[in-house]
Amino acid sequence: MQPIRALLFDVFGTVVDWRSSIIEEGQAINRDKGLTIDWADFVDDWRGLYQPSMEEVRAGVRPWTTLDVLHRESLDHLIQRYGITDWSEDDIDHLNKAWHRLKPWPDASQGLHKLKRRFTIATCSNGNVALIVDMAKHSDLPWDMVLGAEVTGHYKKQPEAYLNSVSMLGLVPDQVAMVAAHNDDLFAAEALGLKTAFITRPTEYGPNQDKDLKAEKDWTYVAQDFLDLADQLGA
Amino acid sequence: MQPIRALLFDVFGTVVDWRSSIIEEGQAINRDKGLTIDWADFVDDWRGLYQPSMEEVRAGVRPWTTLDVLHRESLDHLIQRYGITDWSEDDIDHLNKAWHRLKPWPDASQGLHKLKRRFTIATCSNGNVALIVDMAKHSDLPWDMVLGAEVTGHYKKQPEAYLNSVSMLGLVPDQVAMVAAHNDDLFAAEALGLKTAFITRPTEYGPNQDKDLKAEKDWTYVAQDFLDLADQLGA
Repeated sequence: MQPIRALLFDVFGTVVDWRSSIIEEGQAINRDKGLTIDWADFVDDWRGLYQPSMEEVRAGVRPWTTLDVLHRESLDHLIQRYGITDWSEDDIDHLNKAWHRLKPWPDASQGLHKLKRRFTIATCSNGNVALIVDMAKHSDLPWDMVLGAEVTGHYKKQPEAYLNSVSMLGLVPDQVAMVAAHNDDLFAAEALGLKTAFITRPTEYGPNQDKDLKAEKDWTYVAQDFLDLADQLGA
Repeated sequence: MQPIRALLFDVFGTVVDWRSSIIEEGQAINRDKGLTIDWADFVDDWRGLYQPSMEEVRAGVRPWTTLDVLHRESLDHLIQRYGITDWSEDDIDHLNKAWHRLKPWPDASQGLHKLKRRFTIATCSNGNVALIVDMAKHSDLPWDMVLGAEVTGHYKKQPEAYLNSVSMLGLVPDQVAMVAAHNDDLFAAEALGLKTAFITRPTEYGPNQDKDLKAEKDWTYVAQDFLDLADQLGA
């Protein structure tokens, strides 16, 4: 059992509140354009296309494609489905880039600054580099490094997304903890030898969330938020 | 002509004073072990093996190999050449990792903090991710992202090292400036459409440096140091 040297963070849902952020941007569009789109439905539909959109890439039948491109394909599909016809390319691109402007949970920035003093902190997300870097600058998320999907060429839960991220840090899995609000992310990381930290984010999927409300296993750490995790890790 | 959104930095020589840093660590080893190695000679020999060590990887006859491994192979060679026989594996590994602990030029950390407020700042170095991340934490170099060799799988001056770094930021070459103390790095970047910034580092190679003493072309920017560059860029 080696001491932890680095923390790898899932981002969507673990660090940032994607659902509320997109709803807020959508409601501003409603006001701006005099529309009545239900943005809670819209964002749930958009996120619903997230896992399926990565499947062809994971299966190797489609060459590497960034999440920005996959998000845009899903968005184009939804724009049709919602009967939107008069948006400009700039309008659509701006909404697609809302994922670059997602807002952190209240504890996230302060917690990361504390954890960074003691550990290397890096992302291990399916978000592409530009998305994560823009979000970091927008919301003061002081990553030491953006790892995960684009730099490894593999979407989670493919093992390479975790293992190549660990090896790029010059470490072995036992020296790294995966931090996520999703039990399935931690099951995947644990199977590869990483330590695990579960963060409770009970409203990620809105008021009726019915999954990931609690740790489904005795993970290495279980924390209420990043400040609690920092306390538990002595950071 | 688009405005600059991001700055890509060469690291060895441009951000950190590798020669003085290694000499200082070597002199501590001399004191520790009662040795009389001339560390100025030693580090010049070590750095002399740097470009040749990458050639097989660039030529594609050797699979991707990190700079940590290439540095170690060169070091093993020099240890033999200098007649060193009694060092432990830990001794040798510690010296090899001196590249993770290189010290910045006096203006570098403060200059990067200023530039980061206005631009995305990323490395485009041949150093591997662990090397650059460790160095950043050691010397307060607040990179938004570590790009360059390892994440693109290509050593400079291969075009992919620059172009894939630019595209990972979601930008086009004209929106990015390469920052380097080496004219040849800037010739390569300019040929690919990047803007260029030359930084004067007249003692990188020691008191008798005879190259890169001045800009060899009318680069987009020519600056004395990072604070001067920040002033010129309005950061």
